[in-house]
Amino acid sequence: MAAAIRSAVGRGAAVTGSLPLRTAAVVPGAMRFASSKSFFPEEPEAPTVKTAIPGPNGKKAISELDQVFDTRSVNFLSDYSKSIGNYIADPDGNMMLDVYAQIASIPVGYNNAHLAKAASSPQMVNALINRPALGNFPSSDWAEILKTGILKVAPKGLSNVFTALAGSDANELAYKAAFIYRRQLERGGPDVEFTEEELTSSMNNQAPGAAQLSILSFKTAFHGRLFGSLSTTRSKPIHKLDIPAFDWPQAAFPQLKYPLEEHVEENRKAEQASLDEVEHLIQNWHLPPAAVMVEPIQSEGGDNHASPEFFQKLRALTRKHNVLLIADEVQTGVGATGKFWAHEHWNLQDPPDMVTFSKKAQTAGYYYASHALRPNKAYRQFNTWMGDPARAMIFRAIIEEVERLDLVNHTARVGDYLFAKLEGLAKRYPEHFKNLRGKGQGTFIAFDSPKRDQFLAKAKEFGINIGGSGASAVRLRPMLTLQEHHCDILVDSMEKIVKAL
Amino acid sequence: MAAAIRSAVGRGAAVTGSLPLRTAAVVPGAMRFASSKSFFPEEPEAPTVKTAIPGPNGKKAISELDQVFDTRSVNFLSDYSKSIGNYIADPDGNMMLDVYAQIASIPVGYNNAHLAKAASSPQMVNALINRPALGNFPSSDWAEILKTGILKVAPKGLSNVFTALAGSDANELAYKAAFIYRRQLERGGPDVEFTEEELTSSMNNQAPGAAQLSILSFKTAFHGRLFGSLSTTRSKPIHKLDIPAFDWPQAAFPQLKYPLEEHVEENRKAEQASLDEVEHLIQNWHLPPAAVMVEPIQSEGGDNHASPEFFQKLRALTRKHNVLLIADEVQTGVGATGKFWAHEHWNLQDPPDMVTFSKKAQTAGYYYASHALRPNKAYRQFNTWMGDPARAMIFRAIIEEVERLDLVNHTARVGDYLFAKLEGLAKRYPEHFKNLRGKGQGTFIAFDSPKRDQFLAKAKEFGINIGGSGASAVRLRPMLTLQEHHCDILVDSMEKIVKAL
Repeated sequence: MAAAIRSAVGRGAAVTGSLPLRTAAVVPGAMRFASSKSFFPEEPEAPTVKTAIPGPNGKKAISELDQVFDTRSVNFLSDYSKSIGNYIADPDGNMMLDVYAQIASIPVGYNNAHLAKAASSPQMVNALINRPALGNFPSSDWAEILKTGILKVAPKGLSNVFTALAGSDANELAYKAAFIYRRQLERGGPDVEFTEEELTSSMNNQAPGAAQLSILSFKTAFHGRLFGSLSTTRSKPIHKLDIPAFDWPQAAFPQLKYPLEEHVEENRKAEQASLDEVEHLIQNWHLPPAAVMVEPIQSEGGDNHASPEFFQKLRALTRKHNVLLIADEVQTGVGATGKFWAHEHWNLQDPPDMVTFSKKAQTAGYYYASHALRPNKAYRQFNTWMGDPARAMIFRAIIEEVERLDLVNHTARVGDYLFAKLEGLAKRYPEHFKNLRGKGQGTFIAFDSPKRDQFLAKAKEFGINIGGSGASAVRLRPMLTLQEHHCDILVDSMEKIVKAL
Repeated sequence: MAAAIRSAVGRGAAVTGSLPLRTAAVVPGAMRFASSKSFFPEEPEAPTVKTAIPGPNGKKAISELDQVFDTRSVNFLSDYSKSIGNYIADPDGNMMLDVYAQIASIPVGYNNAHLAKAASSPQMVNALINRPALGNFPSSDWAEILKTGILKVAPKGLSNVFTALAGSDANELAYKAAFIYRRQLERGGPDVEFTEEELTSSMNNQAPGAAQLSILSFKTAFHGRLFGSLSTTRSKPIHKLDIPAFDWPQAAFPQLKYPLEEHVEENRKAEQASLDEVEHLIQNWHLPPAAVMVEPIQSEGGDNHASPEFFQKLRALTRKHNVLLIADEVQTGVGATGKFWAHEHWNLQDPPDMVTFSKKAQTAGYYYASHALRPNKAYRQFNTWMGDPARAMIFRAIIEEVERLDLVNHTARVGDYLFAKLEGLAKRYPEHFKNLRGKGQGTFIAFDSPKRDQFLAKAKEFGINIGGSGASAVRLRPMLTLQEHHCDILVDSMEKIVKAL
């Protein structure tokens, strides 16, 4: 349980005392920096920028790679052997503070020593060279790997897991569970046998065997790029163009106005309108939704937030209409919002029916509680590998490191520190830092910038690796090991960036 | 190139001479066994069966695992630390000859020493703990990992790779490439911009932005279980029931009669009828196919073969109509058919447009040649991880081991040996070994058994782990390290099994 981790070390407790006190005096302007013990004694004091990024070595290697692998989306090549903690190295000797972290998927720093230990263990070698078909021949230690890892942080109320390989397939497997569950209900329960017509028509991709059902998602949502998940993704045309899609419904996601305290009534109305649309679609869409899929914070779509009340009402609404609620925690999960799972911020009495995870978990899957979500027969949810024990063991080591350093509470605290500094910046440069959002959400912070793409490009010149999302958002997705002194460097650099724009 | 591997060690060359000569005399009846040097000196002489499988330890552990993980498809729990070579161990001290090999996905034996070395390397630890977003920040050694691994065995004519995580997503990514390519052609080339209507409609899952196109697959095909791949899977209702599907076309796959030499004309007609249906569907299906998807040997569907002429004509047909041809080598790839890629048996002048792989490669993706299959813009084919360098390195080590032991030619030879022995068995027990097939296809051999499920269950009593497919097939899916003396044990056990049925 995530609660166990949160209470393992009290909020505010110091990080392990054996780490040396950071001496910040080497860096010009360091006196303005908060002092904090570094989690990584070998981490540099500050970014180093020696060349354009990518530099000559990087460019040469990219063009070599491009012969065999599409590199048009490559930002720069990384030298992971030299990367450390929150800093990413490239082959030209540049060292950047990385607040993008492999699109929000590095949790506890590059070359984390505890992860390295787990990765060198005999159990890991065994998992790498004897990869099981987990549904047929799991290893005798699979239950232990799950219980000491993935399930130790299971969201409150959810005790089972179906393992997968990436966020997209985790989401699609959850959708499949929802469709199977819904059809079982419609059929009159798990013991009712399939009709001959269902068996035959399923092989022709036709009803009634192929369900005439849908997944309801929200506008500007991102749930992945495979055919089912892409049908629920509504972030950008470039993700969807030319790919066949299911005719599934979408409801508007509330577009909150900032600062929140100045738009209370307006935002409340926007949330209610969204809920009303969800209810309307549940009752009227020609392919009835088996589930509603929602991100606690829409991430790829531009960091769109909604209030806990919105999610509480969404839970009530789905319960009322007997539609499942799936929380997509692929990007929000594993601590970045200052809770282990972002949906903990909702304070639900009644948990989501399924919660999907990937990215910072370094493995993927979905949690669920009800045995009714296990299909009535074996082999309905099945594939060859059903995940990867090697990656499940990395997640276990990540969880151990999160516990050891109390990184969830740490991130809540650092997020507050960072948000306050960004508020200061936004006051001084309101034209560059619009709609600052993510207060009280750990380091899951974003703002809109009219010159967003230039901002992101310019950031590299100051040794900051940072990403965007949606149409105009700059999003912060640092690791859980981001500390106050990194925030100082980041905010200081951001000021330089906007001055240079 | 696969050709390089095949010529690296001449066909028929002895395996590495340093391995001790196998002494087979310990096993009862060993005088009938062929002598062959074992690739694994520590491999047992024969299976050991001490308990029912699963035994008491296994059953207890399964019921523990079932609290958190659906175990209804579990055959038995494995003890991978004690498994060796072609033998799989369980927690009750049983040791089975494994000719199922994690649903055809273990290539070079359990606890292969060369793989263990690769899995313990510093480069592996680095890949495990610093997992990159390969599309944005690949490591500077990614090109080298690809060129010395995945691309070293690229099918003839295909020089590029898009990496993925499992067979299902590899197939879906290939489908996406096909749809994007086809729409680009229809639009008038890669430089033609999307219309406003395409951009808008794509976000609503509607035409013209969402393509009204399809993938043509074959009846009894298996291409995976995600929403797009499942729409092309036509193996069994249990895979498809209750899951929404695209209205995509299927053509009959030729149902060849055995022995082939007695049904030449009939089989030729069946193949022509299938090709005619493909052409008809390409020309008339309401959602035109962007690609034809085909397995060289339909595997999950029951080991259905077709002749090289069939595939040559299929290639010509798809070329004629400007439809892409994708070979799904997820199960057939990596040596099991006596060629590195099964489609090498087709002797095409003009390679398939894409070839997908997974399973024995321990990583997944698709090969392609044409830069026209790279979408016109970046980020159209993209996801966070885009594969896993750790698993790509395991594939590299597998390729090295295949080269070192000349395992492709070895498997061709052992397959011939095994097939001849099974022909003998089929003559003596024709009621149990029907439609024996896979001659000249390495160890990719199957037969139909009227008591198939009992056969598979009974096999465990004799220490053989073996699988089925389709309605009544027993399929052999051993590792590439299967040797003549294992074949002797296997065939001997099969005789005992059918006698006990």
